[in-house]
Amino acid sequence: MKVHNFSAGPSILPDFTVEKTAEAIKNFAGTTLSLMEVSHRSKEFVAVMDEAIAMFKELLSIPEGYSVLFLGGGASTQFCMIPYNLMAKKSAYLNTGAWANKAQKEAKLFGEVVEVASSKETVYNYIPKGYVVPADADYFHITTNNTIYGTEIKEDMDCDIPLVADMSSDIFSRPIDVSKYALIYGGAQKNLAPAGVTFVIVKNEILGKVDRQIPTMLNYQTHIDGESMFNTPPVVPVFAALQTLKWIKEQGGVSAIQKMNEEKAALLYNEIDSNPMFKGTVINKEDRSLMNICFVMNDEYKELEKDFYEFATSKGMSGIKGHRSVGGFRASTYNALPKASVQALVDCMQEFKSTHVK
Amino acid sequence: MKVHNFSAGPSILPDFTVEKTAEAIKNFAGTTLSLMEVSHRSKEFVAVMDEAIAMFKELLSIPEGYSVLFLGGGASTQFCMIPYNLMAKKSAYLNTGAWANKAQKEAKLFGEVVEVASSKETVYNYIPKGYVVPADADYFHITTNNTIYGTEIKEDMDCDIPLVADMSSDIFSRPIDVSKYALIYGGAQKNLAPAGVTFVIVKNEILGKVDRQIPTMLNYQTHIDGESMFNTPPVVPVFAALQTLKWIKEQGGVSAIQKMNEEKAALLYNEIDSNPMFKGTVINKEDRSLMNICFVMNDEYKELEKDFYEFATSKGMSGIKGHRSVGGFRASTYNALPKASVQALVDCMQEFKSTHVK
Repeated sequence: MKVHNFSAGPSILPDFTVEKTAEAIKNFAGTTLSLMEVSHRSKEFVAVMDEAIAMFKELLSIPEGYSVLFLGGGASTQFCMIPYNLMAKKSAYLNTGAWANKAQKEAKLFGEVVEVASSKETVYNYIPKGYVVPADADYFHITTNNTIYGTEIKEDMDCDIPLVADMSSDIFSRPIDVSKYALIYGGAQKNLAPAGVTFVIVKNEILGKVDRQIPTMLNYQTHIDGESMFNTPPVVPVFAALQTLKWIKEQGGVSAIQKMNEEKAALLYNEIDSNPMFKGTVINKEDRSLMNICFVMNDEYKELEKDFYEFATSKGMSGIKGHRSVGGFRASTYNALPKASVQALVDCMQEFKSTHVK
Repeated sequence: MKVHNFSAGPSILPDFTVEKTAEAIKNFAGTTLSLMEVSHRSKEFVAVMDEAIAMFKELLSIPEGYSVLFLGGGASTQFCMIPYNLMAKKSAYLNTGAWANKAQKEAKLFGEVVEVASSKETVYNYIPKGYVVPADADYFHITTNNTIYGTEIKEDMDCDIPLVADMSSDIFSRPIDVSKYALIYGGAQKNLAPAGVTFVIVKNEILGKVDRQIPTMLNYQTHIDGESMFNTPPVVPVFAALQTLKWIKEQGGVSAIQKMNEEKAALLYNEIDSNPMFKGTVINKEDRSLMNICFVMNDEYKELEKDFYEFATSKGMSGIKGHRSVGGFRASTYNALPKASVQALVDCMQEFKSTHVK
């Protein structure tokens, strides 16, 4: 029995991506060599990189004047690259979770950081609104989806200063208006590829405005000039990302993906809201993530949490344990998760209710 | 026909590594999930990371007091991490090639850099000797193998100050006395794994001696404390690295590997030295690399260079074009390259001679 993969990340990828990558690991593009052992300068791999960048631009309708980069080092490295490259004196951050908090902490090494709002005191169970972004900050940083807490900023916001977004866990889950952002980045290991590659979409004109000397590898301009080939790129993750992009296109693009994500999320949130044993952890329904659905047992059933976890696991649910800071359960419903997996989890919840609720 | 893979990097890996990785991409450790889509915190992947670190230590006989790290970002990121972490005021570099030069250039962002010697003026065709390392430098940086030029420092040197070595292209090619080094690092894509993971062997006591604030991801201590799991590691390359380490052990360890490398190199260097059509590019034989064997056509046969390239390619030799700065040919004979591939190249050289030399 293949398990239902609800892991928060690394997480489920399309079968197409898995199959094509396994094939290429054995024999890449007819070279008789493994994808792991061909030169990144070979015409076969250069074609992969070029196509991955082109499809990234096509699927997200990225306007002229933006570059798409594939880098190593994870989104965590971006936490320092962003202020290194963009922060002359001051930046603004919205604190919506542990990762947003880490990004903000890192920026403090480079200058003044204004936290415009935070939901930390209530374990990040909502997205703050009504805050003021300082007009003299060099950029405003947001984390669009907060994996641990199940909150998401699902609309592209208007911002008077350059907007920087960590979209590690919701990229390609919906259409985005890239023109509203100065920079979008994320680790690939949720909706795109295995861990080991980080994507960056950067508006070229925002670069070159800080005085500090930037180490070569931390300078976005290095990678723009080198077309993500300044040094050897992570070839396997880039290849896998291309397969996922092809799969997204085959599904009908990000609008079709969004519709599927909304259906999957509605199915599970409806069960959470109607099943007397469970409740969602996010206090405002409009802040609920379509990617990570967090729920706990209602107080009167609290002692059955371990039982439900074991029951669901026995039925093939994998990776549904909530993060330790929230507790309970987290079902990550990334693009590649089939609706059938969500239905299987809902079936578990209903069966568990029928056994325990009189 | 499977080609003979002489690529300089990414480069040939053991069939064992290729097969085991392809299997795990489909079904990792019996989880029914792909290696690409399992949590890096799963017990199955934690076991991979732990075993990779343990085998690294075992195969290189790494003494107590050193940490082994698997990081993203490539060796190029190490060029700035090293001075960030180790250079209080001054460092010393040996300039033996383009990569050594890049490392040195990066260090200049952090303080005074002394170039102790350089072979740049003769396109790096030898390893300088008899230089003096300043006693007051914080460390001395060397590049043990220079992929582009085919030179190699094949013995562990004694150094009165902390010795830092880029071993990207000769790690695991011979036993090394790790105790003579403060830090050894390298991209994995030559003798170890696909591109996307960088290994670092660091003596713990050399850290914590600089005053500057170090960005979290650039701080070695972060990754020591996090046991290479501070952020999501590049899971596929780490898994592949473990398979290669198992293969090295199966071959009899690095001493056995060294013997095979010496035999392969002797076979090809003998042909280069005895065949009137060819000559080696490295001026001192003791500096010749066992990993990258660079040669050109003798002056009277210079116009046949393209012909030989095409002839060898037609016989299945892949990746033998020399780097543009050296010209001619480069046969990379990394650990996983079978002796039969070297023999096939030697056969090409002999057949070409019998056709063209009267």
